[in-house]
Amino acid sequence: KHLSIALIPGDGIGPEVVAEGVKILRTIEELDPELSFSFTEFPWGCEYYLKQGKMMDADGIDQLQNFDAIYLGAVGYPGVPDHISLRDLLIKIRRSFDQYVNLRPVSLLDPSFTPLKDKSDKDIDMLVIRENSEGEYAGAGEWLYKGRPEEVVLQTGIFSRKGTERIIRYAYEEAHRSNRTLTSISKGNALNYSMVFWDEVFEEVGKEYPDVETYSYLVDAASLYFVSDPERFEVVVTSNLFGDIVTDIGAGITGGLGLAAGANINPEMKYPSMFEPVHGSAPDIAGKGLANPIAAIWSVSQMMDFFGEEKWGKAVLDTIKGLTVEKENLTPDLGGKATTNEIGDRISEKLQKL
Amino acid sequence: KHLSIALIPGDGIGPEVVAEGVKILRTIEELDPELSFSFTEFPWGCEYYLKQGKMMDADGIDQLQNFDAIYLGAVGYPGVPDHISLRDLLIKIRRSFDQYVNLRPVSLLDPSFTPLKDKSDKDIDMLVIRENSEGEYAGAGEWLYKGRPEEVVLQTGIFSRKGTERIIRYAYEEAHRSNRTLTSISKGNALNYSMVFWDEVFEEVGKEYPDVETYSYLVDAASLYFVSDPERFEVVVTSNLFGDIVTDIGAGITGGLGLAAGANINPEMKYPSMFEPVHGSAPDIAGKGLANPIAAIWSVSQMMDFFGEEKWGKAVLDTIKGLTVEKENLTPDLGGKATTNEIGDRISEKLQKL
Ligand SMILES: CC(C)[C@H](C(=O)O)[C@@H](O)C(=O)O
Ligand SMILES: CC(C)[C@H](C(=O)O)[C@@H](O)C(=O)O
Repeated sequence: KHLSIALIPGDGIGPEVVAEGVKILRTIEELDPELSFSFTEFPWGCEYYLKQGKMMDADGIDQLQNFDAIYLGAVGYPGVPDHISLRDLLIKIRRSFDQYVNLRPVSLLDPSFTPLKDKSDKDIDMLVIRENSEGEYAGAGEWLYKGRPEEVVLQTGIFSRKGTERIIRYAYEEAHRSNRTLTSISKGNALNYSMVFWDEVFEEVGKEYPDVETYSYLVDAASLYFVSDPERFEVVVTSNLFGDIVTDIGAGITGGLGLAAGANINPEMKYPSMFEPVHGSAPDIAGKGLANPIAAIWSVSQMMDFFGEEKWGKAVLDTIKGLTVEKENLTPDLGGKATTNEIGDRISEKLQKL
Repeated sequence: KHLSIALIPGDGIGPEVVAEGVKILRTIEELDPELSFSFTEFPWGCEYYLKQGKMMDADGIDQLQNFDAIYLGAVGYPGVPDHISLRDLLIKIRRSFDQYVNLRPVSLLDPSFTPLKDKSDKDIDMLVIRENSEGEYAGAGEWLYKGRPEEVVLQTGIFSRKGTERIIRYAYEEAHRSNRTLTSISKGNALNYSMVFWDEVFEEVGKEYPDVETYSYLVDAASLYFVSDPERFEVVVTSNLFGDIVTDIGAGITGGLGLAAGANINPEMKYPSMFEPVHGSAPDIAGKGLANPIAAIWSVSQMMDFFGEEKWGKAVLDTIKGLTVEKENLTPDLGGKATTNEIGDRISEKLQKL
């Protein structure tokens, strides 16, 4: 099987962590005669913006269209407003390619990584399924009477039947398939249109999955439980914005963004899916070998799973788990001294010895 | 000074915790010859709804109008949809009386209460100032093509210049007055109208307070920092929805909702302000003496502060702090065996011995 992969290393630490992910992909390619990958790099991001006045080429989406996958590092740089750098690249790709499922594992690799007392890897092991194409991130709004006392700014979340139903159905399928509970996170008591609708769809679709045990929490309560009782959660489904927030709490309880992987997928494979660490570009530590590449490499594991190469998905994840129990294999964010490059090398070596 | 207080005990554990708060107010009244309180109880809430078909009287807001303060327990009951029980009572009061400032202390009383490793009361001590009158909770939206495949639901957040500026200014004043840093929590990289506006106003108003050290975090990053680095925060200002979420994380890191107090205030005192614990009605433990009344009593401390009786505000808070260091003074949510009533009695006794 051949996969053509578009690389968008992006800004800050993006290129460093993507390089390690590519290292792992090349290792897999070497080890598995049935698999081959080709890589095409795109120079898009904030530096590009500062030179060209745009985050990606005007026909950027067309250029990406025929790849099997996109592997992205991180985007964002001081001097480029975030609502430009992100809406015109990351969010644009997610939406143009209908990557409506954002899969984010929240799993504790080692008890020493969590800031929580008395929690082990058995207590924190969930999969957050975030709606990734519409909702609060639809980008609709108005800005009226700018600069005048009567100024008023509207931001509209758009929740379609199609968009809401498909993400909720995806989550039920996943819970059903893996025999786990499913928790919906919403906020019907205050968001009287969108979240009341969300709750209705969650209940409705649930009728098709009588075997799935469900819970429904308000986003405020859920955020508290992520901290006090993470063991309540197995598969979680939530909206775009709430998914953004709870997965960062998830990163918080599992050791930080250096370990948080994400996949933006179009399950129908009509368009390329995108794999990217959840972390940002962290310009302050860029180019120093300080970045933790594990989130980016974990995203490679997700890529393998998505393309049906679960054997490799599991091998990469197991290798990450095996590695991080040893203190000499940790980057500075986890209190170690290993460099970005060393971590990639060690994971590659371990894969070769499997 | 006389204060007329409207009591809305509400549902579930609401009446139990309000009774303890009233006990403390009566104690203060006894001890301070300059202070007197009168109480008028309103039977509103979900039970009322189930009998009368409405959460409060049609002229309920008029009935409350002339009180100095409202003291509310909790609202919500199975069988009454949350978007009715809360929007038609709690949120209605907040908005009708222009209680645009929601003050929520996030302070660790005792290191044993936090689920976080190695955090002491010095690390977690902030005041969250939540916008409380508009924003994401404006209640504006549309529900189109109900039940059809093209169904689409819109939820619009409304951020006015006036509403945004006044909460941000209030927060700067508080940071300036108390010589603390001020952190704004927003999401400009995705919410391209409302939060870009919020960030602009935060910067603009900041020019008037050059002495205040400021930070601005995205809501996802801030949520992570609440868990990993709560010591970053001193005074925090944020929108209605984000304030809802981060204060629940705040409750999570300080020992739970049993300790989370809140004040919904109209700083101009044109309308009554409302004091209420952050927790819900917890119908499962209602009527058993299991509820922790400390959040409700802490709200009484906020009430005293608001009316310029800081001496009592501090006395109540210090008493709470002194009490909770002893294990026999804890309710079941904190691993103790004390009852709701006993906690109220003990705080009252300690106040009398000051
Ligand atoms: C960078 C930002 C737009 C993005 C988001 O909010 O979706 C990020 O926080 C994420 O979680 O992937
Ligand atoms: C009950 C609910 C409507 C309310 C809110 O979301 O504001 C509560 O969670 C709070 O924080 O006071």
